[in-house]
Amino acid sequence: MIARVEISLKKGIADPEGKNITKSLHLLHFDEVVSARVIKTIEIEMNTDDREKALERLDEMCRRLLANPVINDYKIEIVG
Amino acid sequence: MIARVEISLKKGIADPEGKNITKSLHLLHFDEVVSARVIKTIEIEMNTDDREKALERLDEMCRRLLANPVINDYKIEIVG
Repeated sequence: MIARVEISLKKGIADPEGKNITKSLHLLHFDEVVSARVIKTIEIEMNTDDREKALERLDEMCRRLLANPVINDYKIEIVG
Repeated sequence: MIARVEISLKKGIADPEGKNITKSLHLLHFDEVVSARVIKTIEIEMNTDDREKALERLDEMCRRLLANPVINDYKIEIVG
């Protein structure tokens, strides 16, 4: 089973990397760009067929390791 | 218009961050995890309604700034 965990910054948390990308795109004259933000996706291959159990375990992984609850939101999706 | 650019490592290129995540998940006894890989997603808000033109410009952004053609693959998607 393959899952994707999307880890983004919570609303209101500064995203310096996104700001730098926006600035660099403007320097290259991509003037239509309003803003850019960076999201980290972790693709996880798991050795299980139990979808419910997998979602539960992925949520536990996020809480214990992958996401920082103070600054991050996360979204879990089974993709294959 | 909101677009997403997914930047991943080409097949065969080492992904040390993914390897570290896998190792850490195993240390936390998530034994069902086979592997993890990290993908960077850049969400770009653009001031345009021309979908075709936007896709063209996004491809140019990837080639000129966002992706390194030696080690990265990229995928562009309009999401909103």
